[in-house]
This record gives sequence, structure tokens and C-alpha cells, in this order.
Amino acid sequence: MIRFAVLTLLCCAAVAAPSPETDIRAVLGRQVAGWNRGDVNAFMQGYADSDQTLFIGKTVTRGWQQVIERYRKSYPSKDRMGRLEFSDVEVHPLGSDYALVVGRYHLSRTAESGGDASGIFSLIFHRTSAGWKIIVDHTS
Amino acid sequence: MIRFAVLTLLCCAAVAAPSPETDIRAVLGRQVAGWNRGDVNAFMQGYADSDQTLFIGKTVTRGWQQVIERYRKSYPSKDRMGRLEFSDVEVHPLGSDYALVVGRYHLSRTAESGGDASGIFSLIFHRTSAGWKIIVDHTS
Repeated sequence: MIRFAVLTLLCCAAVAAPSPETDIRAVLGRQVAGWNRGDVNAFMQGYADSDQTLFIGKTVTRGWQQVIERYRKSYPSKDRMGRLEFSDVEVHPLGSDYALVVGRYHLSRTAESGGDASGIFSLIFHRTSAGWKIIVDHTS
Repeated sequence: MIRFAVLTLLCCAAVAAPSPETDIRAVLGRQVAGWNRGDVNAFMQGYADSDQTLFIGKTVTRGWQQVIERYRKSYPSKDRMGRLEFSDVEVHPLGSDYALVVGRYHLSRTAESGGDASGIFSLIFHRTSAGWKIIVDHTS
């Protein structure tokens, strides 16, 4: 009876183990929550802490430090950061250690803070020792 | 002496085997050559023949057939296609079966054909039974 209970626990623990998609969606959720607190550093925890991390916008920015500086320059205050929402998010595994995420962002802001903004992003996530992290962000 | 010659041949055959990067750059080269002949179908051979193939521009287009139709609509003639060049191309492996390619495109066209155009692309290539193919193209 005890053995059966243990097997049941093992079974259910295995079933409950988070999938890469669950982990990745949790990273995105923490990014949005951080952004909406005005905390760029919390938002940036979603990116790999590497000098190879890429942000592709109108130009290519390379390196975690350079990416956070770009965000701080483009969004210098909580008002300019506005309220961020992601929608239409799709997670596509690329083998076991990489995944593509495609989605849309929408930024709600007052006119004085730059007005609303929206667009499409594609992210490449990599499974690192620190968890799933964005190594490439192409936002347009 | 013959055994040595055979070993030498084996060695050099192995060294000469094309790397994923060489294969991927060859795909891009064939795309550019096809485009510059006005042959959209040849250009599209670089994309995976799948209803999951994604082209992300201002909107998301899904499926090889839908992507070629989008190109045919946007570039209805050889003049409108202009002369395509890629530059600053980087190939980054994502495990053994996927790779990211980042680069810039430049389209040279007469003013009547729409004028020059340029931008940045990020491509995800997948190693398929038909060779390395683009499964996601984000161009901005």
C-alpha cells in the first residue's frame, strides 16, 4: 500500500514536471510583470547574460549589457515604459535545448509618453544552466 | 604505401565535407541567384515545403504556398524584384539540426519599380531530408 502510494507520487510528480513551453511562458510572464513595475532589470532577466545576446530592431545590438542600455535609453521612465502585453504567443521547440517564440506586443501609453506602440517579435530561447533564456530577440 | 594513400584520401574527404554553415550559405547564394533571374520559385526553394513555414513581416504568413503568393503579390515582375544582395551574414548553430542566420538585404531598383529597399532578416534553418531549409523568416 505504501509502495503503491510512492509509485503514485512518482507518477504524478513526473506528469507535473513543467514542460519547456511552461517554463518559457513563465519567463515571459515574469518579463511582463517586471516591465509593468517599471523594472527594466527584472525584464532583462529573461535574456541570456552573454556578450552574444542579440537584439534586432532597426539595428543589431549585441550583448546583454548593450541590450539593457538600449532599453534604458528608449524607455527612460515608468511612464515611457507604459503597460506591456503580449498576445498570440506561440512556442515552437527547435530540438531539446532551443525554442522559437513568436508573438505580438502591445504597449499602452499616454500621448505624452509616446502613445501606444505595437509589433511582432520572434525570440530564440536557449536552455541554459540558469534556465530558459532569450539569446535572440527580433522585434519589428 | 597504398594504405597510406588511402588514409590520406579518407582524411581529405573528411576535411572537405561541407559544414552546416557552408551548406546554409550555399542555400542563400542560390536564393539570391534565383531572385536576380526573376525566378521566385527558385528563391522559394530555400524555404521548407511545409504548411508551418513562417514569414514574419508586418504580419505573419504561414505555409510555403502562402509565402510564395505573398512574394508574387509584392514583387509581380522582374523589375519590381530588382537586384538583391545580402550582407553582414552570420550563421549561428542552434544544436545540430537548427541554425540562426542574421543578415541584411539590399534591393536595388529603379524609382519606377519602387526604389531601393533594405532591412534586416533573421532566419531559422532546419536540417531536413531535402537539406537545410528556412522554417522561419523574420524580415524588417
